[in-house]
Amino acid sequence: MQIVFLLYDEMTALDAIGPHEILCRLPGANVLRVAKRQGSVHTDSGLILTAEYALADIPHADVLLLPGAGNATTLREHPEILSWVRAIHTTTTWTTSVCTGSLILGAAGLLSGLRATTHWAALDRLPAWGAEPVQERIVESGKIITAAGVSAGIDMALTLAARIAGQDIAETLQLGIEYDPDPPFDSGSPSKAKPSIVEKLQARLVASFEKPK
Amino acid sequence: MQIVFLLYDEMTALDAIGPHEILCRLPGANVLRVAKRQGSVHTDSGLILTAEYALADIPHADVLLLPGAGNATTLREHPEILSWVRAIHTTTTWTTSVCTGSLILGAAGLLSGLRATTHWAALDRLPAWGAEPVQERIVESGKIITAAGVSAGIDMALTLAARIAGQDIAETLQLGIEYDPDPPFDSGSPSKAKPSIVEKLQARLVASFEKPK
Repeated sequence: MQIVFLLYDEMTALDAIGPHEILCRLPGANVLRVAKRQGSVHTDSGLILTAEYALADIPHADVLLLPGAGNATTLREHPEILSWVRAIHTTTTWTTSVCTGSLILGAAGLLSGLRATTHWAALDRLPAWGAEPVQERIVESGKIITAAGVSAGIDMALTLAARIAGQDIAETLQLGIEYDPDPPFDSGSPSKAKPSIVEKLQARLVASFEKPK
Repeated sequence: MQIVFLLYDEMTALDAIGPHEILCRLPGANVLRVAKRQGSVHTDSGLILTAEYALADIPHADVLLLPGAGNATTLREHPEILSWVRAIHTTTTWTTSVCTGSLILGAAGLLSGLRATTHWAALDRLPAWGAEPVQERIVESGKIITAAGVSAGIDMALTLAARIAGQDIAETLQLGIEYDPDPPFDSGSPSKAKPSIVEKLQARLVASFEKPK
């Protein structure tokens, strides 16, 4: 089972690494990391990841995962990446995204007419690609699964692990990463956070979405 | 504010990357990644991270974070790393660990007489270093904060963010990563998972802890 993570400069590392930590431990998983060019990928937190493969090396995936990025123009204006995503999608059993990774799916033309989610502050970007924005943590539309912002990738990956390998395996993976979350605050969604915090963060994030390359 | 992540071969990526995604966004944070040697670090999921600094480059940290590893002998038998951890600890405001990272603190002699936690399957290793094992998600003992397995690092980092920069900033960071967890199963701790799952996983993890380098 070939599980392919697309990496790219300015991506958010946790979008990929949360699911990666779960999916790499699925029985029979062969996890590959691919980028436009083989080599270093500079994430938006300064952390440098490595893609062992270039796009042309990977013609097929059973599972494709697209992480997001604050700067939403980063990836979506690279036509060769969008073509690759479209081509890989024809080979997948599951095509998935975390955070604004769904906007890559949108730009690739894969969300037209579908329900989808993304980071809460980017939901209003989805209709531009013909998608119906849904403020849920995980949205399944056929073989496409989109997850909400950053940390939602962990919940999505556990859901996907159960679909692929059954609930017992998924529960074992959850126990392995001791995922019994207990956040010290209840500020993880715009409906729960203080309005002043939502407003300030939204303004900052929307500005980053608009930031030119 | 210098926040230093120790990276090493065979570490678990999410132990570091969860907190990294939060702490790098603290106002004034200068986040550095250090390893025994500058360069590539091969994590236990196949993912390759990069350490921009070698131990000798970093004589000081305001915050030190030690991730864990399945193979608990990996790091703890490197005396030069333990000496570095001891030396850095004398300069920190906060010394922190995620998962079996606390066993590094133990081996460095820093947990003697202190309450501490680690991955649930490794709790019984703590007394060997004079520490009192505590099955809680986050344990604060003075300036040392230890977190439970892998994903507990996210909760720990939010707690630490509030200590450093105040609750409003921490809540903003939580909203930024949309950390409103909603695991599809309730199997994230040994007290909640099915006993058969706990038993099987514990046997496998204990074997990995014993695995020679």
